[in-house]
Amino acid sequence: MARKYVSIRNLEFLLNEVHHLREVLEHPHFSHHDPETVGMMLDAARQLADVYLLPFYGDMDQHEPYLEDGQIKVHSSVRPYLDALGEGGWLGAVATLEDGGMQMPQMMATAAAFILTAANNGATSFSGLTTGAANLLATFGTPAQKAAYLPGMFSGKWQGTMALTEPQAGSSLSDIVSTATPMPDGTYLIKGHKIYISAGDYTDAENVVHMLLARIDGAPAGTKGISLFIVPKYRIGAGGEMIFNDITPAGVYHKMGQRGTPATHLIFGERDACYGDLLGEPHKGLSQMFQMMNEARIMVGLGAASLASAAYYASLQYAMERPQGRRLNDRDLSKPQTPIINHPDVRRMLYLQKALTEGALSIVMEASRYADLAKTSTGEEKEKYEMLLDLMTPIVKSFPSEMAIVSISNGLQILGGGGFCRDFPLENYYRDIRIYPIYEGTTGIQAQDLLGRKVTLHNGKALMLLAAEIQKTLDAADTYEDLRRYVQTLKQELQRLQQVTMHLVQFAMKGDIERFLSDATLYLELAGIVIAAWQWLKQAAAAQQTLITQLPAGDERDFYENKVHSMKFYFAYEVPKTHALVTRLMDTEVLTIVRTASEMAIV
Amino acid sequence: MARKYVSIRNLEFLLNEVHHLREVLEHPHFSHHDPETVGMMLDAARQLADVYLLPFYGDMDQHEPYLEDGQIKVHSSVRPYLDALGEGGWLGAVATLEDGGMQMPQMMATAAAFILTAANNGATSFSGLTTGAANLLATFGTPAQKAAYLPGMFSGKWQGTMALTEPQAGSSLSDIVSTATPMPDGTYLIKGHKIYISAGDYTDAENVVHMLLARIDGAPAGTKGISLFIVPKYRIGAGGEMIFNDITPAGVYHKMGQRGTPATHLIFGERDACYGDLLGEPHKGLSQMFQMMNEARIMVGLGAASLASAAYYASLQYAMERPQGRRLNDRDLSKPQTPIINHPDVRRMLYLQKALTEGALSIVMEASRYADLAKTSTGEEKEKYEMLLDLMTPIVKSFPSEMAIVSISNGLQILGGGGFCRDFPLENYYRDIRIYPIYEGTTGIQAQDLLGRKVTLHNGKALMLLAAEIQKTLDAADTYEDLRRYVQTLKQELQRLQQVTMHLVQFAMKGDIERFLSDATLYLELAGIVIAAWQWLKQAAAAQQTLITQLPAGDERDFYENKVHSMKFYFAYEVPKTHALVTRLMDTEVLTIVRTASEMAIV
Repeated sequence: MARKYVSIRNLEFLLNEVHHLREVLEHPHFSHHDPETVGMMLDAARQLADVYLLPFYGDMDQHEPYLEDGQIKVHSSVRPYLDALGEGGWLGAVATLEDGGMQMPQMMATAAAFILTAANNGATSFSGLTTGAANLLATFGTPAQKAAYLPGMFSGKWQGTMALTEPQAGSSLSDIVSTATPMPDGTYLIKGHKIYISAGDYTDAENVVHMLLARIDGAPAGTKGISLFIVPKYRIGAGGEMIFNDITPAGVYHKMGQRGTPATHLIFGERDACYGDLLGEPHKGLSQMFQMMNEARIMVGLGAASLASAAYYASLQYAMERPQGRRLNDRDLSKPQTPIINHPDVRRMLYLQKALTEGALSIVMEASRYADLAKTSTGEEKEKYEMLLDLMTPIVKSFPSEMAIVSISNGLQILGGGGFCRDFPLENYYRDIRIYPIYEGTTGIQAQDLLGRKVTLHNGKALMLLAAEIQKTLDAADTYEDLRRYVQTLKQELQRLQQVTMHLVQFAMKGDIERFLSDATLYLELAGIVIAAWQWLKQAAAAQQTLITQLPAGDERDFYENKVHSMKFYFAYEVPKTHALVTRLMDTEVLTIVRTASEMAIV
Repeated sequence: MARKYVSIRNLEFLLNEVHHLREVLEHPHFSHHDPETVGMMLDAARQLADVYLLPFYGDMDQHEPYLEDGQIKVHSSVRPYLDALGEGGWLGAVATLEDGGMQMPQMMATAAAFILTAANNGATSFSGLTTGAANLLATFGTPAQKAAYLPGMFSGKWQGTMALTEPQAGSSLSDIVSTATPMPDGTYLIKGHKIYISAGDYTDAENVVHMLLARIDGAPAGTKGISLFIVPKYRIGAGGEMIFNDITPAGVYHKMGQRGTPATHLIFGERDACYGDLLGEPHKGLSQMFQMMNEARIMVGLGAASLASAAYYASLQYAMERPQGRRLNDRDLSKPQTPIINHPDVRRMLYLQKALTEGALSIVMEASRYADLAKTSTGEEKEKYEMLLDLMTPIVKSFPSEMAIVSISNGLQILGGGGFCRDFPLENYYRDIRIYPIYEGTTGIQAQDLLGRKVTLHNGKALMLLAAEIQKTLDAADTYEDLRRYVQTLKQELQRLQQVTMHLVQFAMKGDIERFLSDATLYLELAGIVIAAWQWLKQAAAAQQTLITQLPAGDERDFYENKVHSMKFYFAYEVPKTHALVTRLMDTEVLTIVRTASEMAIV
């Protein structure tokens, strides 16, 4: 039997009892799905993961991609996985039926992706990028463009990528210099270097379709002059033949983790023979690209939660099986050693893992719900859910990413020396997870996005909408005597977050943006803790309701009681950390802003 | 020129101005050293590190030790390094002249070890273990034992080890089952498995001298029946010939980091031909071993600070050289991009690295000072410094280890995608550092040692002595107007630590040890923050004094002002974290203690 890496029970709880997938499924857009198929869908994803993903997790890490004779080779398990995924229709899970997709709610797709990614995050990077690129193409592509690319991508035979970063333009996308020169036939001659392109090229893909940012000749400086192009590795000729499009892999990065997925350095148009198709409107490339970027950011948060889940179950199993020492109140040496799960310190680390993992997943699921509701509603409702999703995105990206590191590190610690060795998967998860706070905009970039853009957008309307959402949970939880203490705590935390926001916004109003955003990362951390506390209270209220109304027994009762217990753990061990963040954020002393040139070097 | 990995200037500041090495050197025991030789000594260590260590850091990681035909091969740079170290006398730095050592203050040895370890922590693991084993032998060995082993060890030709852990006895040393059967000639027949033995065997060592724990036949159960043995890979025959002592390497662990040093699984006496010499008294093995263990714990803390230092300078250099984006108050796209050190968020991460690294090093130096003062004093004074060293040891081991992870992770983050790739050393430091909170007693074990033993020893006398030490710093700092705010903060923090201690000790007095220690890890974290705050205030007071009395200019003034600034940073960003820990530790709700069997499994 495959080792446990996810809890299907918990996914069902989140989908059905906490985030009410049923309400989303009632909309005509999703009428071809029904609640009864959800369990089957989870089961199918689990089977796919057990067969095509989990068995190759460690081996993909040990045999990283390599560049040989100008070609990149990846692990042999990638192709069968992508084929199976394509056959199952998963790559087009949320795409419309018309575009060849399954038109599934994002919440269901999120649940499936959680299972797959927990089994093997290296392999799902390939599929996640193809799906993201295809969805972008589906939104902005002409019928001809869709017809040319979507079938190959949804089948899994063609790989999709996101080609943004350049050597001089990482966090600062406005400094992109790749060029696009208009050709008489309407295409563009593409020239430039792109780096860190995940799954950017490999021999087992029949084609690679790059979503590439470049500047059309004469375009204005900065982000307003960036356009988006479809640039395939092979162009399709008039007779359907595949013509090599002058994209050369210059290298594969050697990474600490996430080693199954090649991060490539690609040269476009080295021999002046690389052509791309404009996608959408000229000079609107960056804002269009943000559809894929935002989707990718949510997928990064989801991926981080997935890794944390797999690590949690690995360390839980170890803790239940490894005897070491005796309980501190009964150190009788004649007795056998006790499983370490009985030591409070180990138990604390396990609950921390659980609280962070399931809290993170619930945040991602909440965002997925907003994505679904934005799709199924209109007018003001639609705007509301779009704003909520926009506001939540940097938190959805960062909280799971940062906290999964903490979570997995605690999991590794539970195994002691074993955690540091390749005999157990913990060290692999620990290496893999470290890229998540860097992928698709670092935590620092997310923090600037949250405080510098999302919070102040529409005069802070998104934040008010979020407060109203949280209020619903507070009201629901307040009906349970046992939860009132936590309702009060969350109320106070929310008030303090709002005070901090007001305090910081003053600097923006004075035009001192650098001061406004100097500790934005701490603000993001603060918001993340509050949002996770909200999600835990939401889960606890749902669990409490079931405990009271359904009187579950045995394992089922344990499941729900453990949910309440985990909420208490999160409020006891994690929520108090807001105090330090608030203290710092309200502090008037500036310690990290350079005032004079001589201050630059720190000795 | 070699890249920077330590600040010699900072070491001089700590030795001379903060921890007053001069006072220690005045003692007759150290009369053959004088303050003027200290600079030369640091220089010599630096040269050795530049030539024998730094150039091989990455290569040792990439070419890990392997077992072939029953023999373990290590990187070819290890032997020349150990030879150079032996020739320079460094392996016997603190050993007495009589025993063939340099009889150096621990503070000087610590400074040298800091430089060497920062250059290549994999290589210094070999030398650190030899030194620790030799020092143990010097303390408990007979003249004949010393004569047989010390010259080989101090020359670097013979390797020393610490052979404690067994498959069923990791954190729980009382469960050791290796056996020692008395032989007619006074030696003992040794039998057993030892795992995770660092530098346990390799072909480039002429001999390996194991400090091994085992039970003499018929010994009582638990720690009271454990004895300490010298067990060499080759016994010395009557005619000086080397006789293989039946110690077989069964495997080398494949580790995430610290890959240059082989962690070995050794089988002692597979063919009933392994003999050991009792070291010290029978059944006193564990307490004797703790001399080496305590020394090793301090070396772990020191090593963690070293790695954090090397990572700090690597990310600092990157931040000064990498242009990306523009300052937030001046986003004119026509201007060139700014070095990222000018972004407040990057600067925050650099200051965090600096504050954690130099704070950790100062803690280690304080402990080294106590070791020196315990050696040079008598009676009550000696007892006092021994108690202070004992109390500080778990903090010296854990604070640097845990905080170096945070520090290096921030360093990696500064490099973005580059931090995750092998093109830069950050990912290597990040992998290496993760073992430090596990080595020589996990953080959880250190926490139980601190709260469960050290704090309550002699009715809490050690804690009172420590408070008196801290008071001296408070008094000194209180003379500077600019520092008074921080004096008040530290006073409050100290009071709260004492309140928390009293609160927790109540449970011990009621006999509920499990409850007493259930959150000991948080207590250790709290104590670590307070101790680091103390060390920062101590550094700031010393810097302030120099600024006022010596009126330094240029780089020197920057150095001292930066010390004060870093103290402010630590108090602003890190010290407020105590609030969450105190809140939890004073909370009466128990969430991690198993009350019933059915509670065991967390779902």
